Amino acid sequence: MDERATLRLLAGELSHAGDDAAVVEGLAITTDMLHETTDFPAGTTRYTAGWRAVGASLSDLAAMGGEATAAVAVYAAPEFDGEVVREFVTGASDVCEAVGGAYVGGDLDTHEEFTVATTAVGTCEEPVYRSGARPGELVCVTGTLGRSAAALRLFECGEHGRANDLFRFEPRVEAGRVLAPHAGAMMDSSDGLARSLHQLAEASDCGFSIESTRVPIDEAVRELAESEEEALEMGAFFGEDFELVCTLSDEELETVRNALATPVTAIGEVTEAGVAMDGEPLSDRGFTHG
Amino acid sequence: MDERATLRLLAGELSHAGDDAAVVEGLAITTDMLHETTDFPAGTTRYTAGWRAVGASLSDLAAMGGEATAAVAVYAAPEFDGEVVREFVTGASDVCEAVGGAYVGGDLDTHEEFTVATTAVGTCEEPVYRSGARPGELVCVTGTLGRSAAALRLFECGEHGRANDLFRFEPRVEAGRVLAPHAGAMMDSSDGLARSLHQLAEASDCGFSIESTRVPIDEAVRELAESEEEALEMGAFFGEDFELVCTLSDEELETVRNALATPVTAIGEVTEAGVAMDGEPLSDRGFTHG
Repeated sequence: MDERATLRLLAGELSHAGDDAAVVEGLAITTDMLHETTDFPAGTTRYTAGWRAVGASLSDLAAMGGEATAAVAVYAAPEFDGEVVREFVTGASDVCEAVGGAYVGGDLDTHEEFTVATTAVGTCEEPVYRSGARPGELVCVTGTLGRSAAALRLFECGEHGRANDLFRFEPRVEAGRVLAPHAGAMMDSSDGLARSLHQLAEASDCGFSIESTRVPIDEAVRELAESEEEALEMGAFFGEDFELVCTLSDEELETVRNALATPVTAIGEVTEAGVAMDGEPLSDRGFTHG
Repeated sequence: MDERATLRLLAGELSHAGDDAAVVEGLAITTDMLHETTDFPAGTTRYTAGWRAVGASLSDLAAMGGEATAAVAVYAAPEFDGEVVREFVTGASDVCEAVGGAYVGGDLDTHEEFTVATTAVGTCEEPVYRSGARPGELVCVTGTLGRSAAALRLFECGEHGRANDLFRFEPRVEAGRVLAPHAGAMMDSSDGLARSLHQLAEASDCGFSIESTRVPIDEAVRELAESEEEALEMGAFFGEDFELVCTLSDEELETVRNALATPVTAIGEVTEAGVAMDGEPLSDRGFTHG
């Protein structure tokens, strides 16, 4: 049984299963595990690893519309170099500070592969679920997509400095808070835009129709991709971008745009059924988390 | 650099380092990672593993005097059998329910070794730290010690049923809440009684003088140990028992005893310096978490 099938089996029993974070007594909580082989390409600094690992959990809070109160991490590695651990901790602390939260440490653990388990908690009085999208709404995305795909390409080319910069992202906690009172449904794009749309469609029992030309592809992708098709592949399918995907009415989109510095782009609309791009079925593929 | 040295290096920078849980804005949060090879002996059921892994984090909340609001876990394994995962989830849910909290799920992750990363959060308005012990107080322990040492022995003998029973413990959340307004210092005994006393002594800049005959050794240990010396080894050094070790005045001990069904035993007193048992230095050894 694969992870998705097992998660489906448990979905009925657990409040966390099926959304970006669980919400209990006004508190959102989410946890995730990342591994060197699947999540941190060669060249990723420990500062970036700390930022990114903790940022991924903060992004889950953002996707519920929650605040970021605190985050913890288990840092597991074959050995502990004090300076290397400190780099990780600084990255973890800086990403928390960027969204108004506190990194409070966690635990060290001896482990063959560098592995990080992160958890973030934050207050969340009115959570936004994946299940609230309604036909007629616009489907929107924050920021730009494809940064992680571009970073990966740069890591492969040995351009580690720029790759690390692209690999660190600002969790959309502020955007999530502003979007929450308006959005019908919301989640983050960590599995890729295409898969996010399929997951929202399944949870909300609706469809989506988007236009490829409206997908906000990151500038770094434009530079690196050799064709429009490749750029779209990196922007719409690769994932790991931690932007927010949400549904809004026309008027609500105007309201949140006025309140936010982060761009919010409408890429299409909510339909009755089926997930389509440019009128063709959009395949349900993207990043499968290891 | 080993884990303890690295933790010491970071202690000044992180609020979590140096206590059982971090407390931020009235919220206690703690995280931990457990592995098949070091934490779940052959014969441990997945139900027990779920109970114990989540219970360890709930025990950290108890040690701060916090409530248990919610817990999450990352379940990492080479493959996912839906029924096996469900067993784990049931154990995790049951231990949360036993202390008034909610297990809200978490994440699945593909990993060579069965590994669990758990996090628990709970409200904690007046945390008790390790640093508040004062000479003249009594040093006390909840429940009985040595259950995990006895369980390990039974796992080795193939008595898996009884071993699993002993391996599941009730996190002392209720006792922690009752003790919190009275205790000078408090922590859990997960590293063993001896090491806990050394850690409290270091944090509080004090000493302890305890008597071996007053250490509340579990009945299962009495049955299995072949000598008094062996029983004390299992009860005072082995650890992984998740009882609370705390300091109280005589009158406060009376007060908490009247309020709690869980036994609270005075095993000695807080002194100016040095950790001693029966007048001899007590060695600082116990369970070093992998």
